[in-house]
Amino acid sequence: MIKTITGKKDFIESLRGKRAEFILALCNSKTANIKGITQAGIPGKIYLTPTLDSEFLAVGEVRSLGDVAQTPKGVPTPALLTRGVHLLKPFSNISFLDLGLKVKPEIEYFDIFEFGIKPSVNIAKEKTFDAKKVFKKGYKFGKNYKTKEEYLIIGESTPSGTTTAKATALALGYEAKDFFSSSFKNVPNDIREKVIQKALKKLKRSDEFFKRLGKVSDNMIVFLAGFLLGIKDTKVILAGGTQMGAVLLVVDAILKNSKLKFDSKNIALCTTKWVAEDKNSNIKSLLELLDFPINAYYSDFDFSLSSHPALKLYDEGEAKEGVGAGGALVYGLLNGVLKEEITKKVESFLV
Amino acid sequence: MIKTITGKKDFIESLRGKRAEFILALCNSKTANIKGITQAGIPGKIYLTPTLDSEFLAVGEVRSLGDVAQTPKGVPTPALLTRGVHLLKPFSNISFLDLGLKVKPEIEYFDIFEFGIKPSVNIAKEKTFDAKKVFKKGYKFGKNYKTKEEYLIIGESTPSGTTTAKATALALGYEAKDFFSSSFKNVPNDIREKVIQKALKKLKRSDEFFKRLGKVSDNMIVFLAGFLLGIKDTKVILAGGTQMGAVLLVVDAILKNSKLKFDSKNIALCTTKWVAEDKNSNIKSLLELLDFPINAYYSDFDFSLSSHPALKLYDEGEAKEGVGAGGALVYGLLNGVLKEEITKKVESFLV
Repeated sequence: MIKTITGKKDFIESLRGKRAEFILALCNSKTANIKGITQAGIPGKIYLTPTLDSEFLAVGEVRSLGDVAQTPKGVPTPALLTRGVHLLKPFSNISFLDLGLKVKPEIEYFDIFEFGIKPSVNIAKEKTFDAKKVFKKGYKFGKNYKTKEEYLIIGESTPSGTTTAKATALALGYEAKDFFSSSFKNVPNDIREKVIQKALKKLKRSDEFFKRLGKVSDNMIVFLAGFLLGIKDTKVILAGGTQMGAVLLVVDAILKNSKLKFDSKNIALCTTKWVAEDKNSNIKSLLELLDFPINAYYSDFDFSLSSHPALKLYDEGEAKEGVGAGGALVYGLLNGVLKEEITKKVESFLV
Repeated sequence: MIKTITGKKDFIESLRGKRAEFILALCNSKTANIKGITQAGIPGKIYLTPTLDSEFLAVGEVRSLGDVAQTPKGVPTPALLTRGVHLLKPFSNISFLDLGLKVKPEIEYFDIFEFGIKPSVNIAKEKTFDAKKVFKKGYKFGKNYKTKEEYLIIGESTPSGTTTAKATALALGYEAKDFFSSSFKNVPNDIREKVIQKALKKLKRSDEFFKRLGKVSDNMIVFLAGFLLGIKDTKVILAGGTQMGAVLLVVDAILKNSKLKFDSKNIALCTTKWVAEDKNSNIKSLLELLDFPINAYYSDFDFSLSSHPALKLYDEGEAKEGVGAGGALVYGLLNGVLKEEITKKVESFLV
């Protein structure tokens, strides 16, 4: 079942039975190198996570490493969910956006769009990236994007992305400090908060908009904000949790200070139950900060039908979302795929 | 599941969820009239097999005869598999190539492309067909072929085709004598080998390339080799076993002696598990004779979920492949169709 977070069911119901293509935004942020900030990957090799996620999603094999990216306690990547849905009810196409990858995925035949973007900076340090340039690239890509399908689903794989997402929201002045999610069940607030505080301290009153973003955000957030403002007459599902919420906050902030037009009727956010029902974050309140109305939904899917210990960790609050898992689950449910089938398929990857 | 024979998974994974059209090459070779050389059809009426296969695939009825073409022991045609997949996950279009049919199929509304080609000769006799002319027709047809879909799947129905395929490979000098499959479990080597030896004895040192083919091959092999060399920028799945392997050997041999260009990246071969795991043939070694790289896959489908005695014969090694069954099964699996569903559907044709 698909449940509503904000807005009404109509948007998502109108997509029932329709085909979608899937785009995965891949991003390395050097913020992820800070020890203990994320559990989205293998310690010391966190930077490989988007690379491995894209390989697993495309071809079902993890090529740049021996095994599927697992978090330290052994929580497997949410790419398992996205791949599982793709096997049961395939997307019409899967393509990738290289928004600053350290290691290119070893896959052929799939489109990997390149933009000459480098991994974004460690926001805890006195560094900044050219957010305006990244935004413009996203805007242009969106403006020229044509799909043959009824809608797009865009997911992301950006380790430490919830940290940069939260810093982004705060830097733009949104009262959102309690709304952001994490890949941890017990969020390592000390580390994360210190990083965010360091990032925010870099900001100067005189910094213009994109300068601020360049000090605290990441390529994925900035590029997708540009993409959403550029694309026209196309329905888009942002498949993710509070990171995708931050993308919408950036869009909202830009609209306050520019003449750009944005039709939020064509956009919806879809996330997982683990994010939607998370006690430590609040996607609903986050979306209610927006000046425009937005439809948001979550897939009523959990691993209650599984007894696999690694998967049960999701139900306990680890991992939660990523690689478009929430949007993929919604796509599966919209197309008649059953919870039992998804559970079995995901379990089959772990045997 | 789809398994890899040669190459990597990327080609086939990039087609997951995409639609394909299906083309069936229909060919009578008088070689099939030799008693006991094939079990692909009804004794005395083997020539009807491609006609009946095309009728059954298109409309689910065998019109030019009372009953579905069965082999002497009652092994039903692999057209059941192709039709079964088509009912569960339809091809976007089915069309037919008349590459020398004795009896035209009784079907309307489906495209049957005509080329003025007559049944190819009995290779055991002092006869030859104009292979160059057939090749040119295939080349021209490929060059002009436009599809609206993401890819084409091409299957064939050519009784005694593995015999002509083997003769073709040997005539071209490939060390391939142990690699060719047969519709029999216990291959009638005596008859088949005698025919092949007779065919090869007809060859003269002075025979140029197409002259050699005309003495030993069949229209299907020669036409499709031309088709593959003619078609551009289109992904093609050759749906078949060692006969489609012979098509690729002819392409390979032509490339050695001509300026024609061929992008093998766009081509893959897909066959059945019964061919891929056949002890009496070796599709993998056959494909490794090619100078160009080729992706090849098989559908991990068998009748282990069925208890129908006629279908169990497949698992025992009879029939194995034909009418694009392997490629059709891969198409089904790429589009979320389950083994259980295919099994049930095929069983429903036999009740």
